[in-house]
Amino acid sequence: MKLSTESYKGVRDFYPSEMKKQKYIFDTWKSVVELYGYEEYGSSVLEPSELYKAKSGEEIVTNETYSFIDRGGREVTLRPEMTPTVARMVAARRRELAFPLRWYSIPNLFRYERPQRGRLREHWQLNVDLFGDTGIDGEVEMIEVGFNILKKFGLKAENFEIRINDRNLVNETFKKLEIDESKTYQLQKLIDKKNKINDFDIQAEAILGYPFEYKLSPNDRINSLIKKLSERGVSNVIFDDSIMRGFDYYTGIVFEFYDLHPENRRSLFGGGRYDNLLDIFENDSVSAVGFGTGDVGMLNALETYGLMVEQEYSPSVGLCLVNESSAETFSRLEKFIRDSKIITKTNTTLKSFRSMKEWSEKSGNRFTIFVGEKESSTGMFTINDNLTNTTNSITQEMIPAWINKELSKE
Amino acid sequence: MKLSTESYKGVRDFYPSEMKKQKYIFDTWKSVVELYGYEEYGSSVLEPSELYKAKSGEEIVTNETYSFIDRGGREVTLRPEMTPTVARMVAARRRELAFPLRWYSIPNLFRYERPQRGRLREHWQLNVDLFGDTGIDGEVEMIEVGFNILKKFGLKAENFEIRINDRNLVNETFKKLEIDESKTYQLQKLIDKKNKINDFDIQAEAILGYPFEYKLSPNDRINSLIKKLSERGVSNVIFDDSIMRGFDYYTGIVFEFYDLHPENRRSLFGGGRYDNLLDIFENDSVSAVGFGTGDVGMLNALETYGLMVEQEYSPSVGLCLVNESSAETFSRLEKFIRDSKIITKTNTTLKSFRSMKEWSEKSGNRFTIFVGEKESSTGMFTINDNLTNTTNSITQEMIPAWINKELSKE
Repeated sequence: MKLSTESYKGVRDFYPSEMKKQKYIFDTWKSVVELYGYEEYGSSVLEPSELYKAKSGEEIVTNETYSFIDRGGREVTLRPEMTPTVARMVAARRRELAFPLRWYSIPNLFRYERPQRGRLREHWQLNVDLFGDTGIDGEVEMIEVGFNILKKFGLKAENFEIRINDRNLVNETFKKLEIDESKTYQLQKLIDKKNKINDFDIQAEAILGYPFEYKLSPNDRINSLIKKLSERGVSNVIFDDSIMRGFDYYTGIVFEFYDLHPENRRSLFGGGRYDNLLDIFENDSVSAVGFGTGDVGMLNALETYGLMVEQEYSPSVGLCLVNESSAETFSRLEKFIRDSKIITKTNTTLKSFRSMKEWSEKSGNRFTIFVGEKESSTGMFTINDNLTNTTNSITQEMIPAWINKELSKE
Repeated sequence: MKLSTESYKGVRDFYPSEMKKQKYIFDTWKSVVELYGYEEYGSSVLEPSELYKAKSGEEIVTNETYSFIDRGGREVTLRPEMTPTVARMVAARRRELAFPLRWYSIPNLFRYERPQRGRLREHWQLNVDLFGDTGIDGEVEMIEVGFNILKKFGLKAENFEIRINDRNLVNETFKKLEIDESKTYQLQKLIDKKNKINDFDIQAEAILGYPFEYKLSPNDRINSLIKKLSERGVSNVIFDDSIMRGFDYYTGIVFEFYDLHPENRRSLFGGGRYDNLLDIFENDSVSAVGFGTGDVGMLNALETYGLMVEQEYSPSVGLCLVNESSAETFSRLEKFIRDSKIITKTNTTLKSFRSMKEWSEKSGNRFTIFVGEKESSTGMFTINDNLTNTTNSITQEMIPAWINKELSKE
């Protein structure tokens, strides 16, 4: 019985070409958040299940997580989101940490759901959080960071829309209308789906028992946020009363970055203020605002906009041994090139010239060098640039300079 | 009821200071393997359980993994090692890939075991694999890469020993002695523990039914490997007939890098040849040699040798707002410094001068700037270097150059 070579359902294998794309996305994320002073933290994918029962939203914990009982009888969950973990870590060292505190992480997250485009069972997410700020400056920074990330990827402001709302505004409205807490909760969940369903009015009436028109006017906080962002050059921000965000822990401003491309209309970033989450661990509140953005949505967007450019070749040398008797010359050259910090992949299979040349190109080496008897006796090496098809016959000492000259041509 | 802030048992939280150490270890690993042309791949922590039942070793799958049944009735395992995954991925694209193929990954791995020093339930491991090589050159490269990694970390050749053995030599010896397969298997498992137990002879006799002296002489392959490595400057290699490595899939040379420090005597790297592992997926064999090395052992070793140096400050600016009326000057300066690619963390809490200065230092900012009414009206900013306690009063435009000058002083 032979085993299947397929991965587990709904997760991805990252072959080197896919890994390079993921690395490009992660590196771009990091470069922007680090410029704002965010420091990287990390944790395990395993968390005690109770961490999510408190505030993530009932539906998420009950139906959508990977949870199991370990051999010691503990209930364990593969993290479905990072915010409870970062809240736990901040709460644990609350007295030693310096606030405002800026942290980020790029965890893999797990959801037990039917795999579909952009929604896998495992994905990676940039999580950026600012703890202990005051007032609206936290929201301004969060949204500016997100805006700069999309700009750095090459998106233009007209490609996306930043939609903001205020959970307080929603809650106050329902309070004024004297709608009770449980119905408010049901309505919030319904509003969260408003843009995806077409019978919102019918469902809302079913909850309340009477017809309901949902339409809010922006409050001062929303107007002030839009103004401050516009002064800082972030002008594509609009008020949208249907933005709720799924998690129960949000307490104020919530936002989404929405891709406007006709083939990729979806939320790319989401976040908001969650000032009370640390209360689940202790009594002292710590104000907090944060956002998350996933690798799958980002990759789809970049590919849709043609912004994910793949390099055909790496700046490496494929070094091929022609015959065993040249092994000493070969080893000397190998060491010399690597000592010059040039990536060197060897091929000592002694296969045909043609087959080793094919290997060098297919392996993505920009350069190929063969070492045989002629090279060993003359000390002259023929180096080929696989991209430009330029060839040169030079001594060992001249190789690094020639490679660097060829690389600088583009 | 308040929740505990503790992580799940046997796993680690990485606060930014620990994350920096881990990043240093990962970056050092990557820099060496990438110079040899290894390309990074990745996969999910979730794998079908059957993947490990074939060749990882019975004990590992039955007693030591995190396995559970998912909601679709599938048996899933949190990967305890990476080799079966990389074998699966190579087998799946065997016809498209170019061999010799060099791949690496730094996965997190899970073992269900009692937490103890250097043995956690989750750890990260560098995995380096070379597929489709010929002869002994693969082993030479693997061991040289490992040697160069330890050198790059600052270890000297006399700090560690590279112990090698050959599974074939062991198997042939048992065959010659006409010991049957099941007893050979039991003896191999016992030899693997030889250095950790003190009743080897008694246990071996219990298996065989007669006294047994285990002592092998190196074969040609071992002698040739030691010679080739020595010619390449890797001289701390010795033959050790007790090196077996735990996994069942090894077929030839096996090796361990053993730390000789009296406080940290343990294996830092382990690997070997496993030419038949891809057979579990299809009929065509692909020769393979690889090694793994863990983050926990590496960190312990570096700390034992005093080679893990922590930086007190990051090259960032803590930018503090003194009063709301200076917000415009503050924002302009913030944008200017960040546009010069200098990391800038803001503090707009309007707390006391003393408290914001403390925040800036505690947050690890090398520099602090306060922006108040005097700065807004004169355009002169006082910048403090928190490391050298140098202070300078300069215009906005002069700040980046002054920071870079201070940073270059060390």
